[in-house]
Amino acid sequence: MRITLIGSGNVATHLAAAFKNAGHYIVQVYSRSLQNAALLAYHVKAEPIDDLQNINPETDLFIIAVKDTAIGVIAEQLAQYQQLKVHTSGAVSLYTLLAFSDNVGVFYPLQTFSKTKEVDLRNVPICIEGANESITKNLEQLARTISNKVYRIDSDKRKIVHLAAVFANNFPNYLYTVAQQILAKSQLDFELIRPIIQETAQKVQQGLPAAMQTGPAIRNDETTINNHLQLLKDEPALQELYRLLSQGIIKLDNTGQGDK
Amino acid sequence: MRITLIGSGNVATHLAAAFKNAGHYIVQVYSRSLQNAALLAYHVKAEPIDDLQNINPETDLFIIAVKDTAIGVIAEQLAQYQQLKVHTSGAVSLYTLLAFSDNVGVFYPLQTFSKTKEVDLRNVPICIEGANESITKNLEQLARTISNKVYRIDSDKRKIVHLAAVFANNFPNYLYTVAQQILAKSQLDFELIRPIIQETAQKVQQGLPAAMQTGPAIRNDETTINNHLQLLKDEPALQELYRLLSQGIIKLDNTGQGDK
Repeated sequence: MRITLIGSGNVATHLAAAFKNAGHYIVQVYSRSLQNAALLAYHVKAEPIDDLQNINPETDLFIIAVKDTAIGVIAEQLAQYQQLKVHTSGAVSLYTLLAFSDNVGVFYPLQTFSKTKEVDLRNVPICIEGANESITKNLEQLARTISNKVYRIDSDKRKIVHLAAVFANNFPNYLYTVAQQILAKSQLDFELIRPIIQETAQKVQQGLPAAMQTGPAIRNDETTINNHLQLLKDEPALQELYRLLSQGIIKLDNTGQGDK
Repeated sequence: MRITLIGSGNVATHLAAAFKNAGHYIVQVYSRSLQNAALLAYHVKAEPIDDLQNINPETDLFIIAVKDTAIGVIAEQLAQYQQLKVHTSGAVSLYTLLAFSDNVGVFYPLQTFSKTKEVDLRNVPICIEGANESITKNLEQLARTISNKVYRIDSDKRKIVHLAAVFANNFPNYLYTVAQQILAKSQLDFELIRPIIQETAQKVQQGLPAAMQTGPAIRNDETTINNHLQLLKDEPALQELYRLLSQGIIKLDNTGQGDK
């Protein structure tokens, strides 16, 4: 397939590389910054452009991988092209594209990407939505060339998936930062807790997390909870967070006792 | 070393297996339930007992791996034995043992254990504290027979480490449950977000989590945040949690923009 990438951020970068590796042809990479476009384009042997006037119409698919608020603007600017267009956002409805064309869909890779770390897309769930069944099938086929985990998810459900991902990814990462800052304040190394972070994520790769819950809250260990709140006495926001999370854990419909 | 294990829970089970594998001799395993004692004792070729009257004094070390509130009680019951005694708790001070003997220490493996999942102790940080330098050195040496990551951590700092571990392990695991429940309510499979959970934990194995923060809050994306709060309108506790965590992320001293 001939693919044009609109955007040069993390999602665009990882998708472009995966498509290129899967044997697709990346026609152009667009970014408002020609330098950013060129950086990605160079890696996937595409032409970099910084002006949508210079779009090469000899393409089969536009992947709009820009920030959420820019998706509609870009879709409008590409309205003259009849080719399939998809966006890659978890939070944006298909309707944002449907306003300008019928030949549209969503191609949402459910992963956290950074430019500095390679991710094997084979194991990354791709959530697909098409404006009609034929588009959906096309996108499914395309997604399967780079991933083994392709899901049909409509716009309403994709928003739920995105919300769940915030709880499963963005918020745990913030709690890692809280832990790191607590350690740093006592001149303790983050290295101490890296293994437990990894193991916690590892444990839920098979079972469900509710069955794996450990710690003072699931044991209703008030002494430890109060000691921890006391240690946080200079950090009211963290105290409140600790309380709220502990209350949530205590309320878990827990039959057995958690592992220690 | 000849080692006696007081307790047959997750920590006792994993330590016993690791010490046995490292060539130590497990003398006895005590549990209030003879069945539980026998289950673990069988695996490490030790004698199971359910009565502290039957302690075999031919041992070098008592490892008290029982729940926090029972540590003092056990220490008192073992007061007649002069051998080194350690507890394995992150939250309990060394003083709880010092009340009954001078020959005491702490041997705190910083990991989340379940009986159903093997953990390679080689990569598990062991936090060591001794009542004096000679005990500390002994415990360090012992810890190094099962782990490559041995740290000297005194009681005050161990409490900080334990608090950090609650933020880095117990609370993220709870957030995984929240995510799972959000998905389940819309008949969506937890499998969808397992990869992002693993990748999030994987990313902080090198760098620091603050540099890896992604999501609507770090982008100050109020539209998405408000949409998410709206999706949670029937769950006031989760709304509050979402708000608090997002506020924490927004406040992060963030110079660059997060990865998407």
